[in-house]
Amino acid sequence: MRVRKKKWAIPYMDKHPEYLINDPEKYLGKWENRFKNNAPIHVEIGSGKGQFIIGMAKKHPEINYIGIEIQDSVLAMAVNKAVDNQLPNVQLVLTDGKDVDSFFEKGEIQKLYLNFSDPWPKTRHEKRRLTSPKFLQSYQNVLPKNAELEFKTDNRGLFEYSLVSLNNFGMKFSSVNLNLHHSDEEIIANNVETEYEEKYKEKGPIYKIVAQFT
Amino acid sequence: MRVRKKKWAIPYMDKHPEYLINDPEKYLGKWENRFKNNAPIHVEIGSGKGQFIIGMAKKHPEINYIGIEIQDSVLAMAVNKAVDNQLPNVQLVLTDGKDVDSFFEKGEIQKLYLNFSDPWPKTRHEKRRLTSPKFLQSYQNVLPKNAELEFKTDNRGLFEYSLVSLNNFGMKFSSVNLNLHHSDEEIIANNVETEYEEKYKEKGPIYKIVAQFT
Ligand SMILES: C[S@@+](CC[C@H](N)C(=O)[O-])C[C@H]1O[C@@H](n2cnc3c(N)ncnc32)[C@H](O)[C@@H]1O
Ligand SMILES: C[S@@+](CC[C@H](N)C(=O)[O-])C[C@H]1O[C@@H](n2cnc3c(N)ncnc32)[C@H](O)[C@@H]1O
Repeated sequence: MRVRKKKWAIPYMDKHPEYLINDPEKYLGKWENRFKNNAPIHVEIGSGKGQFIIGMAKKHPEINYIGIEIQDSVLAMAVNKAVDNQLPNVQLVLTDGKDVDSFFEKGEIQKLYLNFSDPWPKTRHEKRRLTSPKFLQSYQNVLPKNAELEFKTDNRGLFEYSLVSLNNFGMKFSSVNLNLHHSDEEIIANNVETEYEEKYKEKGPIYKIVAQFT
Repeated sequence: MRVRKKKWAIPYMDKHPEYLINDPEKYLGKWENRFKNNAPIHVEIGSGKGQFIIGMAKKHPEINYIGIEIQDSVLAMAVNKAVDNQLPNVQLVLTDGKDVDSFFEKGEIQKLYLNFSDPWPKTRHEKRRLTSPKFLQSYQNVLPKNAELEFKTDNRGLFEYSLVSLNNFGMKFSSVNLNLHHSDEEIIANNVETEYEEKYKEKGPIYKIVAQFT
């Protein structure tokens, strides 16, 4: 997928090179330098306007977070939130998530999040789904053995597909939740919501799976 | 679990030894003789009052069906349905499903169904769930490689548990449906309902998974 750039977003983001990365390949094997510490790195692909990744970064200062997003107009809003909160543990990358293995070394990141990924319901678009085998292969190329993928969505079709896809890829399920917002209080209290989640959680079940690469 | 016998059910069932089996071990390796043909055998564990197994037997005369049920009072009603329909391709077994490997040889049956199994929600009762590892092991002992297990339930907790349990057991998912009665017309038309399904399908989603033993 082509990285779309909206004119207004570019100058804004260019003003914040401390948060925004256009050339992630430069940091391959060197993300530690970029963060100036060696805390574990957790990555979200398709981070949108950044509500989740910024929320996680505030909640877990001991973890470094990288949000990867292909649309500059939404990523700009995530940059905005990072600036507002002056967070030292967030970086935002404008690129296609399928290329993660061109800018992370195996084991350089410890965990991966996918939230409300585009459903691509048509069978002929299966390859664009972020939980299709080629994407899973890229993720496995950069995550250490037993590392976790956490995936949330409100989209039934995408979740059904993903359960089969992750299983067939050989991933080991840690937990599945078929109605996240009707769960134990503790689960709800610990959950960091995304923009889409906030919007759709009242309209139907939010599904979640945590699974390990093997 | 103890096989419970209700007094009224015994004489009724004893009148129909052509459908009711109390001593399945006797047929180990010899089910073909019992059915008097070598059609494939599909088995349901926890067949209850028999709506599903009888419905399947009517729809698929080319398959032999065995319903296994631990409660004689409900199994008697399945026997009743078999008698009424004079079905040559059904047998009903009064026993505990965990013992399947004491009365089937490996490869003697081709497919397994579990429908609306008791949920046993308490963690300390996990071992009683029909999708827990020990049960899966018994099933694997009798099914050939790549044989399918089909499991339907309305119980969210049991389905969440089962997705993880089947995956962790190494089973390969063929399909997952998170709302069977809100699916393509063809799926609904081909679905044979159980008693519980008929009763609960309007109250919330019916979940279904088809997975293969490996
Ligand atoms: C439906 S939105 C969800 C946004 C956010 N995660 C949420 O839950 O509110 C999906 C996002 O994924 C982004 N996206 C889709 N495909 C992508 C890819 N291959 N690489 C990076 N981002 C992608 C889209 O641009 C969009 O912002
Ligand atoms: C909730 S009912 C569902 C009945 C039917 N399958 C339906 O969908 O309407 C569960 C049934 O499984 C039976 N059952 C529970 N544990 C069993 C076991 N270990 N072996 C055989 N049957 C069992 C119960 O006696 C009960 O009839």
